[in-house]
Amino acid sequence: MVVRGAPAIAITGMYGIVLFLRSFSRKPTYTSLMESIQRLKNARPTAVNLSVAINDYIKKLEIIYESRNFEEILTFTQDFANDLYNQEIQNNLKISEFACSLLEGSSKQLSLLTHCNTGSLATAGIGTALGVIYTLKEKGYNLTVYVDETRPYHQGSRLTAWELQENHINYYIITDSMAGWVLKTKNIDAIFVGADRIASNGDTANKIGTYFLSIAANKHKVPFYVAAPTSTFDLNIQNGDLIEIEMRPKEEITQLSILKDKNGDCLIPEGVLSPPEAKVLNPSFDVTPAENINAIITEKGIIQPVSLTNIKRIISS
Amino acid sequence: MVVRGAPAIAITGMYGIVLFLRSFSRKPTYTSLMESIQRLKNARPTAVNLSVAINDYIKKLEIIYESRNFEEILTFTQDFANDLYNQEIQNNLKISEFACSLLEGSSKQLSLLTHCNTGSLATAGIGTALGVIYTLKEKGYNLTVYVDETRPYHQGSRLTAWELQENHINYYIITDSMAGWVLKTKNIDAIFVGADRIASNGDTANKIGTYFLSIAANKHKVPFYVAAPTSTFDLNIQNGDLIEIEMRPKEEITQLSILKDKNGDCLIPEGVLSPPEAKVLNPSFDVTPAENINAIITEKGIIQPVSLTNIKRIISS
Repeated sequence: MVVRGAPAIAITGMYGIVLFLRSFSRKPTYTSLMESIQRLKNARPTAVNLSVAINDYIKKLEIIYESRNFEEILTFTQDFANDLYNQEIQNNLKISEFACSLLEGSSKQLSLLTHCNTGSLATAGIGTALGVIYTLKEKGYNLTVYVDETRPYHQGSRLTAWELQENHINYYIITDSMAGWVLKTKNIDAIFVGADRIASNGDTANKIGTYFLSIAANKHKVPFYVAAPTSTFDLNIQNGDLIEIEMRPKEEITQLSILKDKNGDCLIPEGVLSPPEAKVLNPSFDVTPAENINAIITEKGIIQPVSLTNIKRIISS
Repeated sequence: MVVRGAPAIAITGMYGIVLFLRSFSRKPTYTSLMESIQRLKNARPTAVNLSVAINDYIKKLEIIYESRNFEEILTFTQDFANDLYNQEIQNNLKISEFACSLLEGSSKQLSLLTHCNTGSLATAGIGTALGVIYTLKEKGYNLTVYVDETRPYHQGSRLTAWELQENHINYYIITDSMAGWVLKTKNIDAIFVGADRIASNGDTANKIGTYFLSIAANKHKVPFYVAAPTSTFDLNIQNGDLIEIEMRPKEEITQLSILKDKNGDCLIPEGVLSPPEAKVLNPSFDVTPAENINAIITEKGIIQPVSLTNIKRIISS
């Protein structure tokens, strides 16, 4: 969780391979290299961008590995990581342009809601869902953004709020449980969220709470948009039920494990936020079914309505 | 917030009047007494039980105030408070019996979900929604209870979890945002929540997040039950839009103001959970429309379907 955000995980992973290669004084065997890469690939089970990137890298690497010297392999890997990085920056910009087109013709005064963090702190560029918000601001929209704090890790109140503050965008932090009240009382124009893995039918795994939010959005007829690069799609997976959900430690909820003092000790003593013996469930993601999503916005275009056919058409375009 | 839970607030308020009266050496004027009582009545705007109790007390008090001596007024007030206390204990038991009848015929293995705290720590007796859970356990049901942590004040993870732990009931704490995931994956049989004020049409103000939860419950066709004594009804209010929602300080969200060290200083430094300049919304309650509620369970009977006619019939019975 030092690096989080599916696109940022992929890029960091690729640069991790660069650093790993640099630690050798001469070319490692292909098998030993693959062993370590495989371990890296499995570090986070839900976000798919890392394994998409690594699979693509391996496919190209295995063809050239034996015939090239160590220096050339290093350069190839470095270029691959740099390309991924630069491509992500471009993808963010394209996603946000497509997303803005969905709001064309609406009032210049927009109220938006977002969950988790999907901005510069989660990607290589301006971000996915949060990138859309930045671009809307640049286009002269007057924004009010409601920011789910995003328990248990507080990516909303810590990261998204910080990004919006830095970018001088008007926002309010709310607890996740307040989203129903906000949807009922604040005339929300749209909800933008990111994604960690999207199945071939459009079912979308994203930060826990996203599914819950989509139900309330549907009920209030507020457009619910997923903004994600095509590298987030896992076409090998038929639907969301097959996406593995990462279960994380209970301490994230009972002690707020992000809150540590200088010695690394938790600021919240055990037993304060819950009984020490408490059993806790901590799924890090949930799956929003395609039918709850009004559109998925990728760098290649807008998938709307969300269906297998439209997904295949946009991804292969 | 030292005392919380609508029924507990009412009882504490009435005993507050007893203590206030005891602080006098002789009978205060009726006007000066009323001034203080009025202030007490307005201490918490959303929960109605306190003002229902005080209005009832005043109605009886004003008839006898001039003709009785100080000692008699004190005894009358003390008896009134004791009666309220004992009545609440009985009400809790009756509510839980009626509620259990709703689950008759279901499997002895029940999965339930609850929000906030509605047990012994919020009432005079076994509680309202949580009282139902205790009674189900006594009747031999094998329970698994999913406990919303209930941000920002953590009444779920701190209080409900503690009560369930003490009563040896199997439970899991979840963040509020996980309720959608739980409803989708855990075969929940019913949701029980309490209430702070119920309008004459059945619209129910309760802890923030209740409305959000009701939407997801409806979507998953999980029965959504409100357990509350008839003193929670405010028949002067036509619908939930007219219920005043208490807005509370931002520090409850940005600093977890419940977490203080021995000197009363907040354990979480400003700027850790959110930017220090962050704007925050902190409505303490939301309103669940009557149509989202499958039944309201009172000490006088079950209101089902929730409608003005059924409410009037049960309350006046």
